[in-house]
Amino acid sequence: MQSLETYALLTDFYELTMAQGYFKNGKAEQTAYFDMYFRDVPDGAGYAIVAGLEQLIEYMQNLKFTTEDIDFLRSTGTFGEEFLQYLSGFKFTCDVWAIPEGTPVFPNEPIITVRGNIIEAQLIETMLLITVNHQSLIATKASRIVKAAGGKPVIEFGSRRAQGSAAALYGARAAYIGGAAGTSCTLAQKRFGIPAVGTMGHSWVQSFANEYEAFLAYARLYPNDCTLLADTYNTLKSGVPNAIRVFDELNIKNGGIRVDSGDMAYLSRRAREMLDAAGYENAKIVASNSLDEYIIRDLITQGARIDVFGVGERLITSKSSPVFGGVYKLTALEAGGEIIPKIKVSENVAKITTPYFKKVYRLFGGEDGMALADVLTAFDEDIGCSGEYEIFDPEHTWKRKTLSNFTAKELQAKIFDGGNLVYASPDIREIQGYCKEQLGKIYDEVKRFENPHKYYVDLSQKLWDIKYGMLR
Amino acid sequence: MQSLETYALLTDFYELTMAQGYFKNGKAEQTAYFDMYFRDVPDGAGYAIVAGLEQLIEYMQNLKFTTEDIDFLRSTGTFGEEFLQYLSGFKFTCDVWAIPEGTPVFPNEPIITVRGNIIEAQLIETMLLITVNHQSLIATKASRIVKAAGGKPVIEFGSRRAQGSAAALYGARAAYIGGAAGTSCTLAQKRFGIPAVGTMGHSWVQSFANEYEAFLAYARLYPNDCTLLADTYNTLKSGVPNAIRVFDELNIKNGGIRVDSGDMAYLSRRAREMLDAAGYENAKIVASNSLDEYIIRDLITQGARIDVFGVGERLITSKSSPVFGGVYKLTALEAGGEIIPKIKVSENVAKITTPYFKKVYRLFGGEDGMALADVLTAFDEDIGCSGEYEIFDPEHTWKRKTLSNFTAKELQAKIFDGGNLVYASPDIREIQGYCKEQLGKIYDEVKRFENPHKYYVDLSQKLWDIKYGMLR
Repeated sequence: MQSLETYALLTDFYELTMAQGYFKNGKAEQTAYFDMYFRDVPDGAGYAIVAGLEQLIEYMQNLKFTTEDIDFLRSTGTFGEEFLQYLSGFKFTCDVWAIPEGTPVFPNEPIITVRGNIIEAQLIETMLLITVNHQSLIATKASRIVKAAGGKPVIEFGSRRAQGSAAALYGARAAYIGGAAGTSCTLAQKRFGIPAVGTMGHSWVQSFANEYEAFLAYARLYPNDCTLLADTYNTLKSGVPNAIRVFDELNIKNGGIRVDSGDMAYLSRRAREMLDAAGYENAKIVASNSLDEYIIRDLITQGARIDVFGVGERLITSKSSPVFGGVYKLTALEAGGEIIPKIKVSENVAKITTPYFKKVYRLFGGEDGMALADVLTAFDEDIGCSGEYEIFDPEHTWKRKTLSNFTAKELQAKIFDGGNLVYASPDIREIQGYCKEQLGKIYDEVKRFENPHKYYVDLSQKLWDIKYGMLR
Repeated sequence: MQSLETYALLTDFYELTMAQGYFKNGKAEQTAYFDMYFRDVPDGAGYAIVAGLEQLIEYMQNLKFTTEDIDFLRSTGTFGEEFLQYLSGFKFTCDVWAIPEGTPVFPNEPIITVRGNIIEAQLIETMLLITVNHQSLIATKASRIVKAAGGKPVIEFGSRRAQGSAAALYGARAAYIGGAAGTSCTLAQKRFGIPAVGTMGHSWVQSFANEYEAFLAYARLYPNDCTLLADTYNTLKSGVPNAIRVFDELNIKNGGIRVDSGDMAYLSRRAREMLDAAGYENAKIVASNSLDEYIIRDLITQGARIDVFGVGERLITSKSSPVFGGVYKLTALEAGGEIIPKIKVSENVAKITTPYFKKVYRLFGGEDGMALADVLTAFDEDIGCSGEYEIFDPEHTWKRKTLSNFTAKELQAKIFDGGNLVYASPDIREIQGYCKEQLGKIYDEVKRFENPHKYYVDLSQKLWDIKYGMLR
């Protein structure tokens, strides 16, 4: 759908003015380190699901400035010929590490680390953030909705309310990573192999002389995938009886109905009784009216008999919390073969960065394999897996705990080595499975919707000393 | 950025199954009428700004199914060869009317009306809604934020938090229509001519030995567009003094500073005093920390001295209300040369559609030219501009009012005639100007943020009779 060449200009203008500045100030060979991380989880949740790496890789691999792009930049009057010459030969040569898609992640840990020429590392900022922020937002929301549905399938139905075409397509992808069973978006099946499914719209029903004829025509054509939209006129008085009549006439045992308005708890219970009484215990009831994790939880509590949740706008926009606030911050520079940590101080304490080139470890308990904490270390530290390791709260440093029976796993994988791709993105089904498996290792207390337990992301003693040494 | 050919599959799967259903049920020549409209304005506001038509036109003009698309559809096993053959020769031949971009619009009036072959009119549903919903959402939000800023420029700074790349690019476009003065998105300047602007990031400041050197290097390079980011270390103790030092040394009279964290009201007032005392009364103060219409209004109330508002995530996602709920509903079918109205009933009264092929009039008062009400009529009614016209509330029909001194203006323009484009999209500067002018004709009571006055969208007597005749 998108020709990646011209993505080069989908960047904040200041990335380009800064890039020219680095270029003209003798920093074209300066090696810099950047971390992408986030400070808060949407919806006040205890965890997020990272997604978007595959599209970020595509962007980095294809990043170049076309002649048209260069001509445009020249026309702004802001850029000199030498720099434009540099851009026209631009090639991405950085090292990149990233936490794989589908991993549960937590505030203040580096999701992506970029090391390389400061111009290149700067220029990718905007698209890196767009891509990972957007997909992580939707994967995280999907994960919550799927959790609320308690094993019933959730289908992403939101394309029409997505914030633009890319949000529809890549939102469907991210929702699948977070656990959705399918999507309404046809292109998402073509591009990613995500099952695209659907029922019918009201226009179908309205376009026939009556509801019965509309159902009959649809069921004749799609007898094996026949979910009839029951609420065009009156769900219980007309929609369900007409559906049963058509199932009877065509001997359809595995059909279904969809309800898109009204009181879902009541309508689904009554529809279930009617379908069961007619011998259609296997007919599925699909609900699709302004659902999200909270409404789904309530519906289940109220005894709704819903088999499939079609979730639209509140998933595809993460309506209750539509921003994933990932940032991309300079953490170090190289000078004379040394890595010099860099910090950004702020009046808002939460906006102070953690400097230096880092690693991220997740520590799993030796007995039950559950995730205990994540630890950020300097790049040259090895936590090891035997012996003892003391973790401590980076804000309240007297809160200390010594772990003795654990496995440490490095979370970031190397993605690019000097601009060469050294990572193979897994198939999306694998990513979905990995997400489910890794979420199973996070304690329920961290995953609950209200007042989740805070998962610890600690600093190693060395990293803490570097950070607070700089602040002092 | 986007190659439009393959947009054909950016559609809900059910549009395709319904389309095949129409095809196989002898409806390939059936003429249908669809209206796109919305039921509620985001943020509970009194008006919305419509946007996205130019991109919708591009989509409709370029809509075709590639061989690859057809092969993919065949591979799903759902579609027969005859229908696939039809799709491979697909060409959009409908009539389309639309309210021009930048117009203030209100719930329940047809923004877009499509008349044509039911298969074609159905297949465009998803992209039509994605395009118009998204851009109208952002144009509406921008309009509110610009209103709050009370004449100070608002710059759209949100790309990095946009829900995908299309949301960044077209969101910048929509924000400009709603009144933003510029964007950070470079591609939006290349594509639409929207001024792309920027300052510098924290990484620039961190990459130098100290803040002063970073400012000096930037100011040397961009002396005429020199907004220095003042909050990397300490805004008042370091950022502003260093900016003044650099302005002094390079004799820069029209520079500026940007503040991205901390208490904006206090910091901007203190920074203003410091800049003024140093003789830089013309230096601009740019603020850019989690702003929206409410925060901006509060800052101004608190006496903040901010000259330019850089608004990011809360604009580009319309964070406080991130869904524009436009729908696309069948309103009529043709049979034997007659237009047969069609209705969708619902247990939710707000979800009942208004049937028939319609026109939308806006009535302006003869004395002050202010918009009084909109009236939906049957397609063959003419309100005229002389004499009297009685409007009435479609829910509370005893609320009636006779207008005698008014001008009636039809809001929809013809866009496609039998698939041929008969409309020229105005330049985006014209659209922005038109939006501002038309908003000036809406009473302030309708535009206020809290409890706005409800603008009347009434039905003509004939249309009311058709609708309520069908309901009875």
